[in-house]
Amino acid sequence: MTDDGMHLNLFTMNSVEHVTVGSWRHPGDQSTRYSDREYWTEVARTAERGGFDGVFFADVRGIYDVYEDDRDPTIERAVQTPSNDPAYLVPAMAEVTDRLGFAITKSTSYTHPYQLAREFSTLDHVTDGRVAFNVVTSYLESAAANLGLDARMDHDERYDRAAEFMDVCYALWEDSWEDDAVVRDREGGRFSDPGKVHAIDHDGEHFAVPGPHGCEPSPQRTPVIYQAGSSDRGREFAARNAEAVFVSQPTPGQVTDYMADLRERAAEHGRDPDELLFFPGIVPIVGATEELAEAKAESYRDHVDVEGVLALLSGFVDMDLSELDPDQRIERIETEAIQGTVNAFAGGESEWTVREMAEFAGLGTTSPVVVGTPEQVADELAYWYEEVGVDGFNVKEAARPDTLSDFVDMVVPELRERGLLRERYEGDTLRETMLGRPRLHESHPGRRGD
Amino acid sequence: MTDDGMHLNLFTMNSVEHVTVGSWRHPGDQSTRYSDREYWTEVARTAERGGFDGVFFADVRGIYDVYEDDRDPTIERAVQTPSNDPAYLVPAMAEVTDRLGFAITKSTSYTHPYQLAREFSTLDHVTDGRVAFNVVTSYLESAAANLGLDARMDHDERYDRAAEFMDVCYALWEDSWEDDAVVRDREGGRFSDPGKVHAIDHDGEHFAVPGPHGCEPSPQRTPVIYQAGSSDRGREFAARNAEAVFVSQPTPGQVTDYMADLRERAAEHGRDPDELLFFPGIVPIVGATEELAEAKAESYRDHVDVEGVLALLSGFVDMDLSELDPDQRIERIETEAIQGTVNAFAGGESEWTVREMAEFAGLGTTSPVVVGTPEQVADELAYWYEEVGVDGFNVKEAARPDTLSDFVDMVVPELRERGLLRERYEGDTLRETMLGRPRLHESHPGRRGD
Repeated sequence: MTDDGMHLNLFTMNSVEHVTVGSWRHPGDQSTRYSDREYWTEVARTAERGGFDGVFFADVRGIYDVYEDDRDPTIERAVQTPSNDPAYLVPAMAEVTDRLGFAITKSTSYTHPYQLAREFSTLDHVTDGRVAFNVVTSYLESAAANLGLDARMDHDERYDRAAEFMDVCYALWEDSWEDDAVVRDREGGRFSDPGKVHAIDHDGEHFAVPGPHGCEPSPQRTPVIYQAGSSDRGREFAARNAEAVFVSQPTPGQVTDYMADLRERAAEHGRDPDELLFFPGIVPIVGATEELAEAKAESYRDHVDVEGVLALLSGFVDMDLSELDPDQRIERIETEAIQGTVNAFAGGESEWTVREMAEFAGLGTTSPVVVGTPEQVADELAYWYEEVGVDGFNVKEAARPDTLSDFVDMVVPELRERGLLRERYEGDTLRETMLGRPRLHESHPGRRGD
Repeated sequence: MTDDGMHLNLFTMNSVEHVTVGSWRHPGDQSTRYSDREYWTEVARTAERGGFDGVFFADVRGIYDVYEDDRDPTIERAVQTPSNDPAYLVPAMAEVTDRLGFAITKSTSYTHPYQLAREFSTLDHVTDGRVAFNVVTSYLESAAANLGLDARMDHDERYDRAAEFMDVCYALWEDSWEDDAVVRDREGGRFSDPGKVHAIDHDGEHFAVPGPHGCEPSPQRTPVIYQAGSSDRGREFAARNAEAVFVSQPTPGQVTDYMADLRERAAEHGRDPDELLFFPGIVPIVGATEELAEAKAESYRDHVDVEGVLALLSGFVDMDLSELDPDQRIERIETEAIQGTVNAFAGGESEWTVREMAEFAGLGTTSPVVVGTPEQVADELAYWYEEVGVDGFNVKEAARPDTLSDFVDMVVPELRERGLLRERYEGDTLRETMLGRPRLHESHPGRRGD
């Protein structure tokens, strides 16, 4: 936990539906405006007004086609399809804000590190140092098929490639151009000193990249690194690479165990374990009174699209949940795809049925849903922040843009009054805002260069 | 020629230097601000004030290392290195303008059509239909080495791949989602009608892409297609695919021949030859009096970096021009790389030496440099537009941002007074502005689906 107050992200996606499947049908919901630039500039202004560190963009490649072995339910119900590339929203949102950051999900499975390194260096320049890279390895067969791979790589192979991918990126971002390589000497006619621009000469199993990097150093050099490792291999990856971790475990006990495990693994990688930040998701549904909050929550629940949720979860766990009886109790699933989402509901004391799981998961998958007055919601966040020891929250949207605007208008003032949320941004770059430092921590492998 | 007046693009690059190598050293030049978002939003506002159709972003992958067989001269002199990805400037520039378009250069050699199709669909949504795709196939060995290819593909192989690449993109953009596939039926819970979202089932030599496209149709569907084919194979590609062609031939006679050839080839592809627009480059250096204009031109010429120009041209033609005596007369070069640039100077009646070529090319490679009063510059543009029959101009920058702001402040009013440039934008999308139609022409192969 850092001592500058809690950190907040809006957790969203450049699509009609993200995780609250069916919410676009709610009267007044503006999710169908996702393809409109002005929708996002409004979101950016609101999030900055609320002191959010950033907007976190999830993304997925491919179309979910596991449920009923068919993509039609997904297309009909807009289950993360259609979706646009989130990175192209960021420059417009940066234009209307000064300090708000942007976490962008990109997959290491379908691009090349020399390409991705240039994209993030550019984005870091364009945003004055306000971008983060959420590293994912992709999991949908339909993405692999469309992007030229005969078959999706298996889980460990994806992570092997991702590990080498990151090492190439670190070398390009951190080691290729020295701090004083750009001299801008008009009289002498020298823009850069070639003696301080180095090849990286990477020659590995997946990539051969001689370098040098084609971009001069951006404000942060390496974007803030996010990850959400859940499997053993994923946790190892996060422990080595992540500066901030998105936590999908739903209960305080599970979150505590997860954080302890990741910190221990980080220490084994030679890192300062306290340099990692942890962000669970949360769905805040807030009203001026308990009754108003409960009425909102009820209305949102009424619009959950249960079949759509099952189509989404089927893609997450790579198993056709349409084959299960809706009233059947769910069991633990062994899967290489996204773990935890369904397993969080399996085998616990609550004994969820498939339908109950879908109805609950329809408001933000496994994240806690907090319904109440501004004081009650602030109490719950304070509990997670002070007692469980998380560093902040990814605010998930039950309604767009009401979840965000309600939170900023009602909960943010309460948090600020309690001294739990800073009054203004302290740093210039996203890493300064989040982590209080301008560069990767010196114990981070990308900085150590090992 | 269209009858709605001439079309103007600013021709630029997200880098310190584009084609006027050395100009960043000129007092007051702001090229070193290329990594600053505000530089570009100012450019966008100025270009829109001047009624420009768009800002055309060149781009290159890799670092020029042919001259002296070394990348150091390129890095030292900022010869298109460092350079950032231009596409991420576009959403910020779109945010501060209403009608200005953006042509983005992307290579078909280092990305996948399913990926690129999503990027342009997103950009078209984010800009409300104001993007163009300048199709290039890339030519630098250093790019191939960094992006995972053992060797650069040969020229014809690059074009074979590019041809299939475009066919995949057209299928995703034009054929996958029917016009009424998105129904947004809140009551019925149907966002899209899956019966109107189609697989494309492409299975070709270079790509296998089942589809469907992951994005709903954007305002233009297919971005406006630019190309600059110069070789025989390149001309064939442009004749089949391009809606607008960037012309690099320097003399009226060469331009006339080129346009006639491309129109003939377009007709052979079953296209209406009049649907193609032609844009030569031009470097306007304008002053309130002839003396002021000439003084500016002289000052710009004084800052040309001859060695930097030769490093750039060596990369263009893939031949080390440092091996030639600067006072040697140049001869025609047979090359698979960018043709025309050096050959334009070779073997003509003017008998250029290497040094003379570099000094001239330093103000915009082979494009005509027009120096004079607003009236004189307008006379020259009118001649090209009315007599040679080009459709407009790519305005190349001898100084940033002065070339653009001088042109907009002094030449644009003169062109408008003569009825050569429209007073306001007529269409909403870039294709409407440029071509007077909302979609690809019905005779275009991307529309015909053959």
